[in-house]
Amino acid sequence: MAVGQCSFPTMHPVAGITLGTANAGIKQTVRDDILVIQMVEHSSCAAVFTQNAFCAAPVHVAKANLVHSPRWLLINSGNANAGTGEQGMQDALATCADLAEVVDGLAAQVLPFSTGVIGSPLPVGKIKAALREAVSNLDTDNWDKAAQAIMTTDTFPKGVSRVIEIEGQSVAINGISKGAGMIQPNMATMLGFMATDAKIGQALLQNCLALAVEQSFNRITVDGDTSTNDACVLMASGCSLAPEITQGSGNYQIFADAVTAVCKQLAEAIVRDGEGATKLMRIVVEQALTDEEAVRVGKTIAHSPLVKTAFFASDPNWGRILAAVGRAGVENMVLEDVQLYLDDVCIVRNGGRADDYTEEAGQKVMNQEEITVIVKLGRGEAVQEVLTCDLSYEYVKINAEYRT
Amino acid sequence: MAVGQCSFPTMHPVAGITLGTANAGIKQTVRDDILVIQMVEHSSCAAVFTQNAFCAAPVHVAKANLVHSPRWLLINSGNANAGTGEQGMQDALATCADLAEVVDGLAAQVLPFSTGVIGSPLPVGKIKAALREAVSNLDTDNWDKAAQAIMTTDTFPKGVSRVIEIEGQSVAINGISKGAGMIQPNMATMLGFMATDAKIGQALLQNCLALAVEQSFNRITVDGDTSTNDACVLMASGCSLAPEITQGSGNYQIFADAVTAVCKQLAEAIVRDGEGATKLMRIVVEQALTDEEAVRVGKTIAHSPLVKTAFFASDPNWGRILAAVGRAGVENMVLEDVQLYLDDVCIVRNGGRADDYTEEAGQKVMNQEEITVIVKLGRGEAVQEVLTCDLSYEYVKINAEYRT
Repeated sequence: MAVGQCSFPTMHPVAGITLGTANAGIKQTVRDDILVIQMVEHSSCAAVFTQNAFCAAPVHVAKANLVHSPRWLLINSGNANAGTGEQGMQDALATCADLAEVVDGLAAQVLPFSTGVIGSPLPVGKIKAALREAVSNLDTDNWDKAAQAIMTTDTFPKGVSRVIEIEGQSVAINGISKGAGMIQPNMATMLGFMATDAKIGQALLQNCLALAVEQSFNRITVDGDTSTNDACVLMASGCSLAPEITQGSGNYQIFADAVTAVCKQLAEAIVRDGEGATKLMRIVVEQALTDEEAVRVGKTIAHSPLVKTAFFASDPNWGRILAAVGRAGVENMVLEDVQLYLDDVCIVRNGGRADDYTEEAGQKVMNQEEITVIVKLGRGEAVQEVLTCDLSYEYVKINAEYRT
Repeated sequence: MAVGQCSFPTMHPVAGITLGTANAGIKQTVRDDILVIQMVEHSSCAAVFTQNAFCAAPVHVAKANLVHSPRWLLINSGNANAGTGEQGMQDALATCADLAEVVDGLAAQVLPFSTGVIGSPLPVGKIKAALREAVSNLDTDNWDKAAQAIMTTDTFPKGVSRVIEIEGQSVAINGISKGAGMIQPNMATMLGFMATDAKIGQALLQNCLALAVEQSFNRITVDGDTSTNDACVLMASGCSLAPEITQGSGNYQIFADAVTAVCKQLAEAIVRDGEGATKLMRIVVEQALTDEEAVRVGKTIAHSPLVKTAFFASDPNWGRILAAVGRAGVENMVLEDVQLYLDDVCIVRNGGRADDYTEEAGQKVMNQEEITVIVKLGRGEAVQEVLTCDLSYEYVKINAEYRT
């Protein structure tokens, strides 16, 4: 199940960034399950990682290696190398060393990422045996294969490709992502890998990524859980002919907006592929005092199992949405000032059902596959959007029966 | 579906407290749906209410009337009188006035409570028409009928009765509760009504209730939602021959412990009757720095849809529990110090699966209907327990199909 059209787009190559995949037989026997991404020398690389206190071993290693001007990413699906203790750390470091040997580079310049089953030892030997093939396949045109190699419970590969113009020169921004939930610890995790040929320093690139992720991946939720392996990387090869992007410049704004747009599309694709999802809900919270307040209200609605099951049933059950707003922990909220819309249908006004609301109008919106819920708090000017999906029988099935 | 034995106990009468029910035909045509509770003059009455910012109309009225030495409670099921705006307030006040007329009392001494569908006008006329019958039935022996009259999606009536001894004199403490989830806004809400014949002042009774609720009703969760109508009341008639219970006395401790025990049993009954529940999970968090931290970790586990679906599937999926602990927002937690047990089976130690753990041992515990999850954080001395149930197909069914 997935909501909407989810075909993989044509990906423009990103000069200086090559990708190679191979089948290591970790869990997959048909599809490739390891991915190597190589950055040309002098690339910048930014990354953000899960806030979960119990990071998986590869997250610890990737965080540490980020300061060593990374040249390679090594990603495997089928095993998260999480909850694996000291052995997991050694295994993550070992795969970095193995790749370094194949590419004749430094292990410290490899960032490792793992996604899949938690608590099983990483099959280091299998990965090592497949590395040479993956490296021999390195090519700028392998974005589709890369997107497939990182899938776990995903039902479709996720990619976005944009070309923007900076001072007359084209700059490409590509991204791929995976994840059918904020977490599926047995098959863990959301991952996002983006690359651009823009020339931009590491510190500025890191700022740019952090802001973009805050507005995109941090605004989606499938089940409210946060993985131990979440990571998002933005590589910049500097191979574009466009001038270097510097802080505070107009060019930076153009670039940052494009990165944010790519992140938003990748994030939306994850929600569309949310486990068991049959509907995509955009929760737009308006007239909040602060952005933080708007996000808090949006996420409280998005996390409510009662709201999510009502959407699964196409039931315009506004009482559940209102109750979620009420328990979001916003101080001094006044019920009479709150308005609630389903798309353009006003359903709540003055503390109760809107006079002009009809069940038919609400039902018509609810029958759609994509629904915008607008909550106007009547307190201020802040607006934020949170994306989520519904809670279906299929969600319970996927997560209850995974290991059987 | 309900977990475990849920038969209604024999309820000792509480001198000075009488209960009367009637059928007002609000939603039920067979079962009684209104309940009047009368307290003898000079009783004390304490109450705590939902923290949801959007309280239902009766909650506003009950809060306001609590200072006027209440003599009567008027409870209806089938309609929550929530999301009903200004009309809802007038309706709640009207029912209080109607009851006051029948009992020849003051409207300000009536506390109203409503539970059921949100957003529909309260059928004031139907309630008024049934009040005389309910009042004519007032009797100390009607606790079973009372427990049935307040049910909505509950599959069984919930009651607890205890008799303690204070200085050689018996003191009865009775309670009834309803609620098949922390919230079902269409059929809203958790309610608890307790009564004792102890003699105790209002302020001390209020303290006693607040502490007991914090340790019981505030430690359970079905779906993480908080209702607009939640309320819990403790009435004390003072008719027992035992001496007045005063602050700081040994008698107070005996009494408060018994009240807490009654609250815990009533709260547990609600979880056992959780929507779609097939398993009861006790999440015990030990070695936390503070109680707040222990509760936070416990609730994060209890709210995780991934943990709940794993339990539904009897899957000892410890990675999901560990990931929930990790995202609970506890600062400086060390994975290597955390231990995880299913009943007495250690499943996680030293940051990974315990050496001596076997899937068979874990599976054996998971196959039980009641499971204790013990998380030892290795940080301090605080211990707290949270009760919850699993997330099943039936939960989705109940909440998706309610209005169809």
